[in-house]
Amino acid sequence: MSRKKDILNEALKLFNSTNTQCQSTNHIASSLGISPGNLHYHYKNKEEIIRLLYSNMKEESILSVSDLPKTIEQLNEHLKVLIAIQWKYRFFFKELLFLLSKDKQLDSLYKEDNINHFQRIKISIENFVDSKQLRNLNIEELEYITNSILLTWQFYSSHLQTLNIKFDKNTSIKLIEHTNSILNAFKIKE
Amino acid sequence: MSRKKDILNEALKLFNSTNTQCQSTNHIASSLGISPGNLHYHYKNKEEIIRLLYSNMKEESILSVSDLPKTIEQLNEHLKVLIAIQWKYRFFFKELLFLLSKDKQLDSLYKEDNINHFQRIKISIENFVDSKQLRNLNIEELEYITNSILLTWQFYSSHLQTLNIKFDKNTSIKLIEHTNSILNAFKIKE
Repeated sequence: MSRKKDILNEALKLFNSTNTQCQSTNHIASSLGISPGNLHYHYKNKEEIIRLLYSNMKEESILSVSDLPKTIEQLNEHLKVLIAIQWKYRFFFKELLFLLSKDKQLDSLYKEDNINHFQRIKISIENFVDSKQLRNLNIEELEYITNSILLTWQFYSSHLQTLNIKFDKNTSIKLIEHTNSILNAFKIKE
Repeated sequence: MSRKKDILNEALKLFNSTNTQCQSTNHIASSLGISPGNLHYHYKNKEEIIRLLYSNMKEESILSVSDLPKTIEQLNEHLKVLIAIQWKYRFFFKELLFLLSKDKQLDSLYKEDNINHFQRIKISIENFVDSKQLRNLNIEELEYITNSILLTWQFYSSHLQTLNIKFDKNTSIKLIEHTNSILNAFKIKE
């Protein structure tokens, strides 16, 4: 594995174990047993490391439009993958707004991706209507469900935290359950 | 108005205009034209100021159990008041998790209050069932609706921000609309 990749993995480990503020590039270098100069040869600053971690996370999680779930069962399979990715990059979700406020470039990137994410969730929900799993929805209902699912994806782990429920591999199932409850209210009863 | 109160109001103004990290106690003192020593006579540190702002916000927003909304119309009236309070203390919602991570005392306080808040929302929803505005709910549905409403209250303004929608006095209505959409799915159709 390359030195550049080593640094990225070490940073991810350290960010997840505490938070990004506690971990300077000097800490990351020292934890790897390399000099700060060596780290800065690969990365200009901490923001560059965080942006690369974000872009890796995005690559691991994104589906092409043709692969978007056609049924709620497929959505649940996809959510299991996403939950694992959210756990792997958990520092990012924990600090989301703070990180965006610290780096204008990350802020633009994330918001653009997120607006696309919103559209892709909407397409998935329309798929569930087409496959007769959900009843026909008016525009407001479609907007509401899409917002609810994206809100859950971005902030449900934080929400659990504010109720003193630790978000870990076991409780992450609650995020999937909540998403299913959103959809349940619009399901065609069999 | 007392000096102690002046400092609190100035801090709130400065926190809302940027964020808490950019504003040291020295900045707050200088903005008021007083010495740092004078500020520290009233407040030990920034955390103490933030905790007092939080406790004021709580006092302004809390309802006694007997005053909890009995109908969805009463909920909407209460939400209008809450939205104004959320706007007044907007820095707090914007930085929620970051502030909790910075101050263990605030963290315990907030989580305890939030768990109570969860219970109070649950009682309100049961009121709507009693007043025949919502259909009978099973335990999972009641938990789901309560979590959804609290999630919306805590993070909907942040969610809008991640979609590049500025949260202001005008868009705050979206938080009320979203809350109503959560309940709509369980309404008894007339």
